[in-house]
Amino acid sequence: MSLVPDWLAHRAAATPARAAVRLGERRWTFAELDRAVSALAAWLQSEGVRQGSSVGLLAWNSLAAAVAIHAVPRAGGVLVPLNARLTADDLAWQLRDSGASLLLFDDANAALGEAAARTAGVLARRLPDLDALHEAAFPPPRFRLDAPHSIVYTSGTTGRPKGVVLTFANHLWSAVGSAFNLGLIGDDVWLACLPFFHVGGLSILLRGVLYGIEVSIHEGFDAGRVNRDIDEGGATIVSVVATMLRRLLDARCDAPYPPSLRCILVGGGPVPRDLLERCARMGAPVVQTYGLTEAASQVCTLPPEDALRKLGSAGKPIFPTEVRVVDEAGEPCAPGEPGEIWVRGPTVMAGYHRQPEATAEKLRGEWLATGDVGYLDDEGYLYVLDRREDLIVTGGENVAPAEIERVLCEHPAVAGAAAVGLPDPEWGQRVAAAVELRPGAEVSPQELLELCRHRLAGYKLPREIRIVAELPKTASGKVVRRLVREQWLSAP
Amino acid sequence: MSLVPDWLAHRAAATPARAAVRLGERRWTFAELDRAVSALAAWLQSEGVRQGSSVGLLAWNSLAAAVAIHAVPRAGGVLVPLNARLTADDLAWQLRDSGASLLLFDDANAALGEAAARTAGVLARRLPDLDALHEAAFPPPRFRLDAPHSIVYTSGTTGRPKGVVLTFANHLWSAVGSAFNLGLIGDDVWLACLPFFHVGGLSILLRGVLYGIEVSIHEGFDAGRVNRDIDEGGATIVSVVATMLRRLLDARCDAPYPPSLRCILVGGGPVPRDLLERCARMGAPVVQTYGLTEAASQVCTLPPEDALRKLGSAGKPIFPTEVRVVDEAGEPCAPGEPGEIWVRGPTVMAGYHRQPEATAEKLRGEWLATGDVGYLDDEGYLYVLDRREDLIVTGGENVAPAEIERVLCEHPAVAGAAAVGLPDPEWGQRVAAAVELRPGAEVSPQELLELCRHRLAGYKLPREIRIVAELPKTASGKVVRRLVREQWLSAP
Repeated sequence: MSLVPDWLAHRAAATPARAAVRLGERRWTFAELDRAVSALAAWLQSEGVRQGSSVGLLAWNSLAAAVAIHAVPRAGGVLVPLNARLTADDLAWQLRDSGASLLLFDDANAALGEAAARTAGVLARRLPDLDALHEAAFPPPRFRLDAPHSIVYTSGTTGRPKGVVLTFANHLWSAVGSAFNLGLIGDDVWLACLPFFHVGGLSILLRGVLYGIEVSIHEGFDAGRVNRDIDEGGATIVSVVATMLRRLLDARCDAPYPPSLRCILVGGGPVPRDLLERCARMGAPVVQTYGLTEAASQVCTLPPEDALRKLGSAGKPIFPTEVRVVDEAGEPCAPGEPGEIWVRGPTVMAGYHRQPEATAEKLRGEWLATGDVGYLDDEGYLYVLDRREDLIVTGGENVAPAEIERVLCEHPAVAGAAAVGLPDPEWGQRVAAAVELRPGAEVSPQELLELCRHRLAGYKLPREIRIVAELPKTASGKVVRRLVREQWLSAP
Repeated sequence: MSLVPDWLAHRAAATPARAAVRLGERRWTFAELDRAVSALAAWLQSEGVRQGSSVGLLAWNSLAAAVAIHAVPRAGGVLVPLNARLTADDLAWQLRDSGASLLLFDDANAALGEAAARTAGVLARRLPDLDALHEAAFPPPRFRLDAPHSIVYTSGTTGRPKGVVLTFANHLWSAVGSAFNLGLIGDDVWLACLPFFHVGGLSILLRGVLYGIEVSIHEGFDAGRVNRDIDEGGATIVSVVATMLRRLLDARCDAPYPPSLRCILVGGGPVPRDLLERCARMGAPVVQTYGLTEAASQVCTLPPEDALRKLGSAGKPIFPTEVRVVDEAGEPCAPGEPGEIWVRGPTVMAGYHRQPEATAEKLRGEWLATGDVGYLDDEGYLYVLDRREDLIVTGGENVAPAEIERVLCEHPAVAGAAAVGLPDPEWGQRVAAAVELRPGAEVSPQELLELCRHRLAGYKLPREIRIVAELPKTASGKVVRRLVREQWLSAP
């Protein structure tokens, strides 16, 4: 079996009148979404999109962006969602790398999109006004499960971004695993405040159609709006990263969420203890997750009941994904022993677009070598320590930056921290840490160092601690240690 | 991708403490079920089961039967669930046909099983006492998705039963489609009163493990017990056939079910109007379904909100299954025009075991020609009329037995009806109908014929109506028209 019907078309036939997407006051049923997608797919073909054409999409979250995301595969194209926070040069590079024949942009990204498309020599088109599109009878295609659905560029914490080729099967299995794990209720409303240009946001749209549930689209992250959508709009699941979660709780002074909110899916790194404790006190249903673009988002999740008992863990793999932690020789590590996290299963990417060497380095037989470091405890719970390239090696000892950052973040004045290795003539690397404070809070580097002394082994102690105005972060809110390190080296 | 981890082992690792199965007062978690399955799998291998061995299972629903159903694939075997209502000769034929090397039977079927195994020359073993099994560390295998999971013999309303080869992928996709359609809640309890030897019962056990929900096993159908399990035991989904549903409602005098019951999945033929109206009055959430063994159970479902608006319809196909209705030339029929129902998708069987000709007749390219007759209305809802072999042809006109039966069943005294074609020198066939009355009810054939005269075209009118004590039914409660016809012919 390798062909399945167009997901949205099948869903629109099965439950045409159910709510599919909404943004603010505007709400579409699956039948309405399907009609708009057919119209846009016809328009895409009139703009030259053919079977296998790559189509760039440079847009903030919107109804039009959601329609485009479903229309590209219907028209036979491969979706290339582009990060609207990048420069025109970065975008031009990704357009060329993906072989895109067309770039779609929204109003807010018109100048950026046109500049990038000009540099890349690619046709650029403003996303058409959905209300002005001609209705078109568009026979829905069948999707080949092993064909590429999208090329998603990784946030790129190291080096040039790589285009992760995700097939229809990758996305479909990801949706299956998530449903078998988190459950799926007809009345679910999944709140999408993560950008659609990352796999965490994109996958919400795809799940929405497969599950037949509503996706509440947020143009960006606004803590007040997200809280309101949960309190009054009936959102039942929300996907966030830890920094967003903190802002959500801050904005409501830890007032409990209504019982209709059944899952806060938190990705992008471990959730700090104090935040988990706040959530536990409020009864907030936090599901921590470990995922990566190369595995079409979720790999492991930790249910709320284990949140404090397994503090800092990402939980267990979701079906049918399997996880192991291996040593340098690729042999499984003993429980508690750190190594590289490997992932196996049908959500693992087809490879990196046009990068056979990088692909060969990541895909080892059936396994994806994630480049992340972690360990499994004796009950099989995964603990993610760090990205392998962020590991600090000082005097021959491995130091996980996350461990130091967790200690620093325990201080009430600290909003975020990044530990990095700086070149050291004696030890190879020495530990250094940059710290971002909460608005109005104060603390001295000496006081933070004292905290560390009580909690960390000597070789792990930061030799320098700097207070910075803001830590560099990715679009999804992850601190980019590489940039912290570069800033430090350029201004020692 | 073609390998996935053992479903139960993966589930037991993810949620070991969740309730997996219960029967009466006994309840097992997934960890406990997994341990029992490992122990039984080790025992099966000690009894000679090897990769690809067919293993017959002759048992009523029980915990031991559930364990065996999961243990056979873990041990590498192919499950052959056998209908405990058959004769020893029938069973021997199926054992030989499936190439079984071992037959497992429960206490209640000991004599039958031993007789069948003796005739077939197959090793027979009583299902071991689960508490006496030695715990065994059994490394869970990976399942090849395209490998056979089970050979399920069709109830056989016509001719010799055929062994439907269902792969792991067939069952897995069936579970995916059902979840994407009905939803899936962590607290779900799926009540299994359909026998595990039919695909309708078997699939509940497989879904339970994939979804991580509890299966409440009933040894058989007892209306009082099923009602009690829904009212007090927290069962949220129950799979039945229409006759069971009627008995359930009769037994509770149409008292409403608690809101915890979220789905009554009714298969095995259309639900009569009066029953649907009773359900609507009680607010009972009836989901009608059309399915068949050859497609690993559910193909289409009709949600409760459409139950009366689309009376008699089986609804829309569940993802990613597709349905069409075709004429003799295999071309799609117009809306409303009856033809043969064809089904396409990953739940369609690999074929009939050792019956290449029957397989070729049923599998036409990607499509399964079901042999059932029906039509799609202008909104794409499927209406199943009849099995093709039951179609009555009189004077060149096709008459769907179901249409006549529906009219007869509108009479308050009628519990069930079967219309058949009898040989007729003038018309080829003439319509005849056998009717089973409700306990204590009375009605004359003349009165029933009057009812038909008001509702049916002349050529569809039964020339004879007989009142019978009981209509012959399959194990799952479907009336077997072939037997009605045979009885009539043998006693005209």
